[in-house]
Amino acid sequence: MPRFFLSGGSTVAGGTAFIAGEDAKHVKVLRLRIGDKLILCDGKGLDYHCSVKNMAGESVECEVFETVPCMAEPSVKVQILVGLPKGDKAETIIQKCVESGAEEILFFPSERCVMKLKSGSEGKKLERWQRIAEEAAKQSGRGIVPQVGLLGDLAEAFNRAKATDLPLFMYETGERETMREAVNSVSDIRTAAIITGPEGGFEAYEAELARVMGLHICSMGPRIFRCETAPVAALSALMYATGNLD
Amino acid sequence: MPRFFLSGGSTVAGGTAFIAGEDAKHVKVLRLRIGDKLILCDGKGLDYHCSVKNMAGESVECEVFETVPCMAEPSVKVQILVGLPKGDKAETIIQKCVESGAEEILFFPSERCVMKLKSGSEGKKLERWQRIAEEAAKQSGRGIVPQVGLLGDLAEAFNRAKATDLPLFMYETGERETMREAVNSVSDIRTAAIITGPEGGFEAYEAELARVMGLHICSMGPRIFRCETAPVAALSALMYATGNLD
Repeated sequence: MPRFFLSGGSTVAGGTAFIAGEDAKHVKVLRLRIGDKLILCDGKGLDYHCSVKNMAGESVECEVFETVPCMAEPSVKVQILVGLPKGDKAETIIQKCVESGAEEILFFPSERCVMKLKSGSEGKKLERWQRIAEEAAKQSGRGIVPQVGLLGDLAEAFNRAKATDLPLFMYETGERETMREAVNSVSDIRTAAIITGPEGGFEAYEAELARVMGLHICSMGPRIFRCETAPVAALSALMYATGNLD
Repeated sequence: MPRFFLSGGSTVAGGTAFIAGEDAKHVKVLRLRIGDKLILCDGKGLDYHCSVKNMAGESVECEVFETVPCMAEPSVKVQILVGLPKGDKAETIIQKCVESGAEEILFFPSERCVMKLKSGSEGKKLERWQRIAEEAAKQSGRGIVPQVGLLGDLAEAFNRAKATDLPLFMYETGERETMREAVNSVSDIRTAAIITGPEGGFEAYEAELARVMGLHICSMGPRIFRCETAPVAALSALMYATGNLD
């Protein structure tokens, strides 16, 4: 069923919803007709099941026939924290991680990041990234639009991870836990973070900082993942481990 | 460490290896020097650890100082079977599934496949796909080059899956098992298959055929995956479940 978020001026009140702006245009592109069903999601986990009532004006009027909690949100809120990669890999990561259930996707600069955002271009980039997140959230039936962001430095990323129940720092060498050991070390996982590197991975001192800060230094097995594959693979494994692919 | 497969004319005999063809050129592109180390993999799970001895000629002569089994191969041989998608999604699937540990990636035509391969173009396509698999295998440190293929029809895909210990048919609606239930129903998983659909998913009769043939009809949770994300997410979950991300 087509799915829209209550954003860009759409409203719901007293059993009637109005879809406005780009989404109203999208309803027309999809060739929906009077009586056709769609879902309006408030972006906080609530779904309004609607049927189209009037599409003569600029906005689309709908009747809300049922209001239900969106069942698609995982029990664990997972932050994805990634060393900023080159090219359009950030976009791939955003799209795939939203589908796979991430709560938030944040990029940060690290020692081996080749990609530098031009000062002043962050705003435009973030706008574009957020749009990709919203599209992916619609398509995969999410109950929220995951937030995308850009952090100032590695320390900020580690501090955010540290504030979760299960902060995982994915690293390729040295003394590490398995993800299974890390998952089993926490009895009730409500929040988690997955940290992965840019193309060249992390410097030893960055991993050491993660260790000192008490993050779980985790292996992902003997195969080396590309920087745009690692977050999705780790997130899928974590979703499985916490019963969120059941 | 740079990694090459024994293909395209490279040879190993009596403690000496010769890297030939494109790979020899690649050694030079990588600016390796005399004494630098690299790994030559026989593509069947054996790694020759070498050092460069002579690169004056067209081929690169190496000394083999150690021969060890490649530790990167998972304990479960997983076939990925995907309804042929549009555009370059097949390439994305191949690359990501090789990194994630797939043994074989096979595409098949199904009812809702929009993509039709032009008769006569299969050979070229397969060649390109196989090259992508080889590149991904090198980069991720695999002990084999996963085979890529094109099957004649859905029945062939289902029959191949059926011959494995754990044939999983991923489906979005109706009566399904969780992947966890399917995994737990088999005591010793040596081989498995993951079947996912093209952009539009599967027709009900295709799912019914899978059910009749005794495949596990599996859910991947309440979120809807894009056709190029589903195989990677399912494979990562299966690798985690079978201890192959440890």
